[in-house]
Amino acid sequence: MTSQSPSPAATASTALLTDHYELTMLQASLRSGAAHRRSVFELFARRLPDGRRYGVVAGTGRFLESLRHFRFEEAELERLRSAKVVDDATVDWLADYRFSGDVWGYAEGEAYFPGSPLLIVESSFAEGVILETLALSIFNHDSAVASAASRMTSAADGRPCIEMGSRRTHEWAAVASARAAYVAGFATTSNLEAGRRYGVPTAGTAAHSFTLLHDDERAAFTSQVESLGKDTTLLVDTYDVTAAVELAVEIAGPELGGVRLDSGDLLVQAKEVRQQLDELGATKTRIVVTSDLDEYAIAALQAAPVDVYGVGTSLVTGSGTPTAGMVYKLVSRADDSGEMIGVAKASKDKTSVGGRKYALRKISPRGLAEAEVIGIGERPFDDGNDRELLVPLVRDGEIVGEEPLEAARERHAASLAELPRKAHQLSRGEPVIPTVYLDDQP
Amino acid sequence: MTSQSPSPAATASTALLTDHYELTMLQASLRSGAAHRRSVFELFARRLPDGRRYGVVAGTGRFLESLRHFRFEEAELERLRSAKVVDDATVDWLADYRFSGDVWGYAEGEAYFPGSPLLIVESSFAEGVILETLALSIFNHDSAVASAASRMTSAADGRPCIEMGSRRTHEWAAVASARAAYVAGFATTSNLEAGRRYGVPTAGTAAHSFTLLHDDERAAFTSQVESLGKDTTLLVDTYDVTAAVELAVEIAGPELGGVRLDSGDLLVQAKEVRQQLDELGATKTRIVVTSDLDEYAIAALQAAPVDVYGVGTSLVTGSGTPTAGMVYKLVSRADDSGEMIGVAKASKDKTSVGGRKYALRKISPRGLAEAEVIGIGERPFDDGNDRELLVPLVRDGEIVGEEPLEAARERHAASLAELPRKAHQLSRGEPVIPTVYLDDQP
Repeated sequence: MTSQSPSPAATASTALLTDHYELTMLQASLRSGAAHRRSVFELFARRLPDGRRYGVVAGTGRFLESLRHFRFEEAELERLRSAKVVDDATVDWLADYRFSGDVWGYAEGEAYFPGSPLLIVESSFAEGVILETLALSIFNHDSAVASAASRMTSAADGRPCIEMGSRRTHEWAAVASARAAYVAGFATTSNLEAGRRYGVPTAGTAAHSFTLLHDDERAAFTSQVESLGKDTTLLVDTYDVTAAVELAVEIAGPELGGVRLDSGDLLVQAKEVRQQLDELGATKTRIVVTSDLDEYAIAALQAAPVDVYGVGTSLVTGSGTPTAGMVYKLVSRADDSGEMIGVAKASKDKTSVGGRKYALRKISPRGLAEAEVIGIGERPFDDGNDRELLVPLVRDGEIVGEEPLEAARERHAASLAELPRKAHQLSRGEPVIPTVYLDDQP
Repeated sequence: MTSQSPSPAATASTALLTDHYELTMLQASLRSGAAHRRSVFELFARRLPDGRRYGVVAGTGRFLESLRHFRFEEAELERLRSAKVVDDATVDWLADYRFSGDVWGYAEGEAYFPGSPLLIVESSFAEGVILETLALSIFNHDSAVASAASRMTSAADGRPCIEMGSRRTHEWAAVASARAAYVAGFATTSNLEAGRRYGVPTAGTAAHSFTLLHDDERAAFTSQVESLGKDTTLLVDTYDVTAAVELAVEIAGPELGGVRLDSGDLLVQAKEVRQQLDELGATKTRIVVTSDLDEYAIAALQAAPVDVYGVGTSLVTGSGTPTAGMVYKLVSRADDSGEMIGVAKASKDKTSVGGRKYALRKISPRGLAEAEVIGIGERPFDDGNDRELLVPLVRDGEIVGEEPLEAARERHAASLAELPRKAHQLSRGEPVIPTVYLDDQP
């Protein structure tokens, strides 16, 4: 128990972001020799979040970045020794650990469905098993946020959404949330670290504390406009909204960039404020609304003259589904003769399908997605328009799947455009396309 | 957009884990001069999570650790300059930033209620406002997890709980979750980084993949027992539970440490497995159950001969409430004459109470908590048994509130023991003690 722990950010290695049991399994299998059996692990979701029609893959870029830093350096090895997590032989093996296998995966931003093989890890059991926790943590978190974010940007239908949920989630989860939201179409984030680290555009102006700090609203608005310019957004609901809007336009003039509403009945207020702004000549001043918005509130506000939505809590908590529920399972491994055997647990309530998977999105001649076709053991037949879903991410240990974040953002938009229209219904429903398994065993 | 971003763990500074608008408010108030007004910020929750009877404060130690690393070094300043987040004068001010004020707060592990002033930050506006996001991120996350964890350990009533949710949350949130769960009485965690960083005891044995890797269950169990010893816990539900239990005792003997059930009807199975183990002479072999447990499932399983509960998803997602909903508000600030003025937003749906707060837990002569008494502007009267809730965390910029994690764990147990018994009911209800405000303005 130390009170002088280093900052979470002070360690470069991601190797201990790992469940204890992965290393004990490693130890036991190194001893029996089974650790070296060629193995295939698969990361997938048994189902979509309750009532959702599609999910969005996010975290791929972060996983590859974290994989690069998944190294057992002396500090990590010393911890494993002193805490007696594993024996010396295992510590020695970990000291030399570099993932040397192949990883295939759905590209970031892609829609996914129940059973979609989102990540395929091909390596020895030893090399693949210890990546379980890190891979799941990243994909479960980032995909939960992106899946919720996608419904929000879909509901906003072109009106920009600002991600501002940092304060409602773990400080580093906040950075990843901002990134995932951007993949799923959010325009900007409030999170400065996401700006630095991932290039997500950042935005922000002022909170109620800024108004309350000053002797009155006039002093606060004047101070803000003098410092940030007329294009700034003034927060108008600290006292009386109508008086504040009048004051805001008086101080900034009709060039005022925006006003923000953060409480009350936003639908009614947005209409009133728009009329007031127009009457004051501030016809181009934007109305930004924030205040516990989610995809349903956004959909309801589409009827109001709102220009920008700011979303916080419900975004970073996955709008009711804070984790995507993905699992990482051994689906195939070699026997002593080197032949690969499909494996799966026999449980009734937690099914998985053994065998190495391939995946294709079946596309109609008119360009619409029709099914998620999953081949077991071999590639499904592509009848012309279909899209291969697994792309190479790591080849012989070398990371080959990194791409600019913008590519994932564009892929998300394209993947969604291809789904049947009912994918965009917010009501609870079934996955918008079925998952079809093709087994190579007739 | 860079694909070569450093690892989240590669940066020591926590300064950019901050919302953009805090720095724009800083810029505007530095320019107007209001930035230097003496201010009091308060972190509190307007309400408890839906239906909960108490909350648990967690994150205090992490906040103090992060505050120490809240420094704008050249890398952070360069980002603010190049992204034009703030003007040069503000960048210069930030370069010299060291928090020099006072922070008071509820000690970690303490129970809290609606309106409890969990953190009081006394400084200039400038120094206090930029801590908003970091403080909220940490307290909202860690307290949500600790509050859920506390209900689970309460329901388990002395049976040990293992935290194993790392895979279902962001990889660094996982580390903080393990820490928060430990504060709230969990016995161990699966998370190795939480072991290293915070000294939380770690545990783990094997997953289904380990069994599936081997040619049969016999080979897998033999391998595990040979490597990890007879005291290990064997996972017995990969194929047939009864056959696996028999095999487990055959291989390890009656000294077998434990068996783990991870699927099916745990209540029925635990009884059957206990009987089978006893008949095989393995009367001391523990039964560990895991599989989407939450506080309600634990309560239901108290009727079964379960020895250990493993909890994952519902723990790290706050059992339906992944964020504690705390806010950070300016409640008082100086005017030009230096006199402190209580301030609050006039909104109907988001109330806060202006003024510097003091807090006392009113304790009956029999040692039971009776009320959360909050003094506005002055300390409430202590009639003898009452407990002062605000302790010094930072004094003149110096961190004075760090303590071993065990102290927070012990405080949690003591704080809970003091609450009326109905605090431990899992059913939805009102806060178990009322919050009473005492205003110094008669």
